[in-house]
Amino acid sequence: MTSIPKNLAKTLDKLIASQQGLYREGKVADYIPALATVSPELMAISVATLDGKLVGAGDIQAPFSIQSISKVFGLVMAMNRLGDSLWQRVRMEPSGQPFNSIIQLEWEKGIPRNPVINAGALLVADVLASHYSSSKLAFLSFMRHLANDENIYIDQNVYQSELIHGNRNAALTYLMKSFGNIEAEVPEVLSHYFTQCSISMNCHQLAQSLLFLANKGVDPRTNEQICTRQDSHRINAILSTSGMYDQSGEFAFSVGLPAKSGVGGGIIAIIPNYGVICSWSPPLNKFGNSVVGMNLISGFANELGLSIY
Amino acid sequence: MTSIPKNLAKTLDKLIASQQGLYREGKVADYIPALATVSPELMAISVATLDGKLVGAGDIQAPFSIQSISKVFGLVMAMNRLGDSLWQRVRMEPSGQPFNSIIQLEWEKGIPRNPVINAGALLVADVLASHYSSSKLAFLSFMRHLANDENIYIDQNVYQSELIHGNRNAALTYLMKSFGNIEAEVPEVLSHYFTQCSISMNCHQLAQSLLFLANKGVDPRTNEQICTRQDSHRINAILSTSGMYDQSGEFAFSVGLPAKSGVGGGIIAIIPNYGVICSWSPPLNKFGNSVVGMNLISGFANELGLSIY
Amino acid sequence: MTSIPKNLAKTLDKLIASQQGLYREGKVADYIPALATVSPELMAISVATLDGKLVGAGDIQAPFSIQSISKVFGLVMAMNRLGDSLWQRVRMEPSGQPFNSIIQLEWEKGIPRNPVINAGALLVADVLASHYSSSKLAFLSFMRHLANDENIYIDQNVYQSELIHGNRNAALTYLMKSFGNIEAEVPEVLSHYFTQCSISMNCHQLAQSLLFLANKGVDPRTNEQICTRQDSHRINAILSTSGMYDQSGEFAFSVGLPAKSGVGGGIIAIIPNYGVICSWSPPLNKFGNSVVGMNLISGFANELGLSIY
Amino acid sequence: MTSIPKNLAKTLDKLIASQQGLYREGKVADYIPALATVSPELMAISVATLDGKLVGAGDIQAPFSIQSISKVFGLVMAMNRLGDSLWQRVRMEPSGQPFNSIIQLEWEKGIPRNPVINAGALLVADVLASHYSSSKLAFLSFMRHLANDENIYIDQNVYQSELIHGNRNAALTYLMKSFGNIEAEVPEVLSHYFTQCSISMNCHQLAQSLLFLANKGVDPRTNEQICTRQDSHRINAILSTSGMYDQSGEFAFSVGLPAKSGVGGGIIAIIPNYGVICSWSPPLNKFGNSVVGMNLISGFANELGLSIY
Repeated sequence: MTSIPKNLAKTLDKLIASQQGLYREGKVADYIPALATVSPELMAISVATLDGKLVGAGDIQAPFSIQSISKVFGLVMAMNRLGDSLWQRVRMEPSGQPFNSIIQLEWEKGIPRNPVINAGALLVADVLASHYSSSKLAFLSFMRHLANDENIYIDQNVYQSELIHGNRNAALTYLMKSFGNIEAEVPEVLSHYFTQCSISMNCHQLAQSLLFLANKGVDPRTNEQICTRQDSHRINAILSTSGMYDQSGEFAFSVGLPAKSGVGGGIIAIIPNYGVICSWSPPLNKFGNSVVGMNLISGFANELGLSIY
Repeated sequence: MTSIPKNLAKTLDKLIASQQGLYREGKVADYIPALATVSPELMAISVATLDGKLVGAGDIQAPFSIQSISKVFGLVMAMNRLGDSLWQRVRMEPSGQPFNSIIQLEWEKGIPRNPVINAGALLVADVLASHYSSSKLAFLSFMRHLANDENIYIDQNVYQSELIHGNRNAALTYLMKSFGNIEAEVPEVLSHYFTQCSISMNCHQLAQSLLFLANKGVDPRTNEQICTRQDSHRINAILSTSGMYDQSGEFAFSVGLPAKSGVGGGIIAIIPNYGVICSWSPPLNKFGNSVVGMNLISGFANELGLSIY
Repeated sequence: MTSIPKNLAKTLDKLIASQQGLYREGKVADYIPALATVSPELMAISVATLDGKLVGAGDIQAPFSIQSISKVFGLVMAMNRLGDSLWQRVRMEPSGQPFNSIIQLEWEKGIPRNPVINAGALLVADVLASHYSSSKLAFLSFMRHLANDENIYIDQNVYQSELIHGNRNAALTYLMKSFGNIEAEVPEVLSHYFTQCSISMNCHQLAQSLLFLANKGVDPRTNEQICTRQDSHRINAILSTSGMYDQSGEFAFSVGLPAKSGVGGGIIAIIPNYGVICSWSPPLNKFGNSVVGMNLISGFANELGLSIY
Repeated sequence: MTSIPKNLAKTLDKLIASQQGLYREGKVADYIPALATVSPELMAISVATLDGKLVGAGDIQAPFSIQSISKVFGLVMAMNRLGDSLWQRVRMEPSGQPFNSIIQLEWEKGIPRNPVINAGALLVADVLASHYSSSKLAFLSFMRHLANDENIYIDQNVYQSELIHGNRNAALTYLMKSFGNIEAEVPEVLSHYFTQCSISMNCHQLAQSLLFLANKGVDPRTNEQICTRQDSHRINAILSTSGMYDQSGEFAFSVGLPAKSGVGGGIIAIIPNYGVICSWSPPLNKFGNSVVGMNLISGFANELGLSIY
């Protein structure tokens, strides 16, 4: 699909340099205090390739709250655990609504539109909480395994903040439970969900952890099959239509890569058969996507002509 | 992306054979009498490739009403005419609503979610009606030019039927006009829209006409630049997130190709850098997509491993 | 229910005096030029009683556009014409939505919530247009008969303005037609509707014309039965729950009388077994109700303790 | 407003006799087991008048779960406690939506449409839970005081059932809390709400307890001012527009009395300046209102010509 640039590091350095000061166009998430205190000036981009390169620029070692990027990993675990029966409880359609809207969930009788909006990720959290004896530990282990780093941790400060400000997610989960689509107790589901959102990782770790999605389900570093080839295509399809909140269409239109963002300011994008990009900059646009993070990824994608379309 | 099968014709013949009788799982569109009279047993599949192959099976010479597939061609014309200012009047996000829903249009103050739901296509029709002295003739000429066939025609029977049963499209257009997002007179917009929906073509013609979208905007038969390379990516992105009505996500998930269907039973799918598939079978599923048509395309795509994801 | 104040005229004069300058809190309807040009300082209040009194204060002779107040008269005509079968095509429930919302109409499959929101009044207009050879003439005759004044007229300037700016009403009507709930041609329905909205009357005329609703269907001046006793109760019930747009509940809460307002600035309120109040002042609040008009009616109702609750 | 029939008891007996077997047209609420076990054949009607009559027919001594009828009493307590500042947290408009819809609450940013839909009653429960040291005891005391009966009790079986099946009410409350419109902890609010819904009373007790609403706020038995005269009007206004779920308009249209129903099968109706009717029969229609209960009240109201309109 693409030729690897001769000097990847230089390309990334130039991209970072081009974004100086642009973080001011966004606003750091402030719905929880723990996120609001992050420095808005930090930024980073990492690229991991199937042939083993790992290159970055900016604050690539700084850990940040992965937030909704965790939805991708939760989905992989749930697909592995439930198989296709998962799709009786959550659809795979774009939502056409702000990511946390409760209206659509009511219309569609408690069946979330897809697993990467909040309702769908809470449904996935229920699957994990119901099918693992300790789903939080299982999730953390999965992340440490993929990143090959036992130091990956749950930010307890973020977790506590999420719990206190999690009323809308509680409303979504209770509504699904009223439709019979939640098996575990709601507080348990929320606790799992906020735990996975509260994991801290850096760009290098995230980029490497997702290489299997660019490689038909196989981690190229270990040849381990993380998910089936088919599920790898499917997850990329979902990320393409729905990964960037209510800006997913525009992102497909202008960048054309499967991607997922989080309100911690991180964005990951899959380049099938090539590798993974991870960018990070805390200030968000009105859709909840990192302003500079999107610039970095679209800049890289456009320079290399990476659109899958 | 894919290796061309040695015997494409044989592959298509087998696919057609595998679908015998399955048309009974769908229902021919009956909202207008002119569509309801088509034989449900007809079916066809054509594949046109960038290197000049054109292979098909089934009723490949039978013309059918292209209906919503016309939205792709209208969009190309409007993008060429207006440039990026088009996107101030229509968004590029998936809709998450049935294709003809008026609710979303009200919420979003008369700005359609994307140009391939009905509201968006009516907006595009307004652009054409406002910017061409005779938009219907211009559209027909464009179709004849792309298909390289001066015999392509407007089915007047279908057109009259559409006009009589077009009350919901009239409601959508008047609602947009009430928000100031329609320039021409509403009857003129509707007349253009129903005209382009009423064009009859066969699978061979449609597959060949869209080769430019698989080839970065360039028609490989003539080397003519039909749209810009960027717009070619963009259109494929929109078709990927929104081309199959409220089954677009599932289609991306299971097939993974930019595609557009019409209630006449036709479906086109773009295989970037390879070619175009067009299938046809009148009976539709509950989402408005051809049952057998989807089977034919997904069968072909899966056999060749064509997913873009 | 109430004792008639000894000096009704003095009470009304004081009320008018108390409202000097308060029109500045509202804004004259400007969606059509013909309404926007009315002087905001005009105001009037009239009270007609069952025992033949007719008292007023302010600009009681100035005609104004009755607009949505016409919905009451149209409803009477349609109830008389269709009988209870009318209620198969329109409900009698409060809408809980802004008066011209198209969303609810879509949800409820083209059945308007009640006959005094726009969709319902357009449905009533369809009944009249379908059942009278000349519904506009019939409507005008009915109004002249009730007001006992052959000079009541249709303001052609307002009518033309309504037609030009009637796109949302067109959208509502086409949507109902798409659900099979409109019999006449849409332009004919709209033409009738805009005609009845464009009638000009003054406060004295309106107050007297509605005396039958305070008197169990019988016009006390002529003993003519204008509608059945039951329908008189029913219309008052609908006006009580739905007559003041999305402020109907608050009006019931604070005033407690069946009432109907129009964007021309007029309001009528029925005092069962006593009489009718009509107030007028063009500037509207955000709900579309006359600011001063509401003050005048609530002032009068509270002074006399008129709440029906 | 009405003349008291000479033989009230005989009228009620005849009404009860007329309803034999009609309970079969409804369905006993089965969303909680504790309600589903009530005999569908039970029915009763009581009438209490301002001048001290108390007449009934049928199973007038049988206690039933008052359910949503408790919303009226909770509202009185909250209005007394907060005064007009209550109306900054809940509106007084009809909802136009099924009684437990979450969609409207989302649209209106966590402000319920009125205090007698579920969301509004949960808001009122929050007011009580936040302003009383023991709101449940206070509520029970209020009910015993009004009914002048210390034996009125909370059905613990119903209460436990409500708690277990209260997920939708939990969703509504968490959603309001996410908008900042709930002060107490959500479980505390729910516990209060389910407690007040679980009170058991019979028709005689309910009819007598609400006499103050027919008498400008004053209990005619004791001359105690239970609420202000103005609030008495206001509550009757809210019950008139919104007391019978999504059948409120039809009830106003056909009966014309302020009323409130509960899914336990009870209905109370206020006859201003005359008295209170309470009917009971467990089987409900599709709107959640007792089929026979409505027949009994409309039969009584029509016979006596009681409509307030």
